[in-house]
Amino acid sequence: MNFNLKEAIEVLERTPRALGAMLSGLSEGWLRCDEGEGTWNPSEVIDHLIEGEKTNWVPRLAFILKEGEGKPFPAFDRFAHLKEKSGRTIEERLEEFAAVRAASLATLKELVGSEETLERTGLHPTLGVLKVRELLSAWVAHDLTHTAQIVRAMAGRYREDVGPMIVNLSILGSKR
Amino acid sequence: MNFNLKEAIEVLERTPRALGAMLSGLSEGWLRCDEGEGTWNPSEVIDHLIEGEKTNWVPRLAFILKEGEGKPFPAFDRFAHLKEKSGRTIEERLEEFAAVRAASLATLKELVGSEETLERTGLHPTLGVLKVRELLSAWVAHDLTHTAQIVRAMAGRYREDVGPMIVNLSILGSKR
Repeated sequence: MNFNLKEAIEVLERTPRALGAMLSGLSEGWLRCDEGEGTWNPSEVIDHLIEGEKTNWVPRLAFILKEGEGKPFPAFDRFAHLKEKSGRTIEERLEEFAAVRAASLATLKELVGSEETLERTGLHPTLGVLKVRELLSAWVAHDLTHTAQIVRAMAGRYREDVGPMIVNLSILGSKR
Repeated sequence: MNFNLKEAIEVLERTPRALGAMLSGLSEGWLRCDEGEGTWNPSEVIDHLIEGEKTNWVPRLAFILKEGEGKPFPAFDRFAHLKEKSGRTIEERLEEFAAVRAASLATLKELVGSEETLERTGLHPTLGVLKVRELLSAWVAHDLTHTAQIVRAMAGRYREDVGPMIVNLSILGSKR
């Protein structure tokens, strides 16, 4: 096991800055490219990350600490962000992500005061018993999953354009 | 085909900032994690990107524009960066990457003055005839390939830690 809270927070606090640096000011062609039907483009991924701060990670943490395994925490609608088309710019949404993430991390530090808290358990609606440390590990891996998704979608735009050099570019080799 | 020079430069100029925001100040555990034997950790990827600025992308572009298909451009040692262990901090190397990338982009803008230049061709040592536009597309995709590699390596550190939540985290599903 590799998880520790300090290192996890290092990644969580960097994600908004990294995605801000990657996406802010980009042309629409980059922001609207995806990996095919039913997949998300970079702009939609940011909406999903904002939604996760509001309804998923810290709310679930608080729920576990309150309810334990007594009742499962509410299911998270992973597609909620697709229903709301706000018309806000990517820069506005990246700023919102940075703000809600900062608030999440402040609450996290309040709620998880000790190593012992990391071992507390709750009940995931479909996956069963879940430890706080597993939820927090998943939060970090979730950031990285969606960062990778953005990067793969962008690389895919040039799948044809790279010509013979595709053989050296593993990211273009297959979709997932 | 999706390539255009302005949009390609948008990505190329953002990569050092994005990787700087992602990696600067991280613990060694994150900087030294890889995807298994023979794969690179985030720190080594930055060294590889620096090496690419010095010996690969713009030097090859200049070679194509000078020699055309007359002679193949020199092979690029993709493992050169592994030979030199500088002992410099990640922040120093991220700064160097930003500096050499800025210089590369300045030269790129000088060398590629028109759409016509994008159609010029050279000879890749193993892949044969290569257009300037293909080389530049590959440069962009190469940035994204290695950004994805960093992110996958980091996510992989928590493969066991996420417990039952692994089923929702596609990045942990398989290596590549």
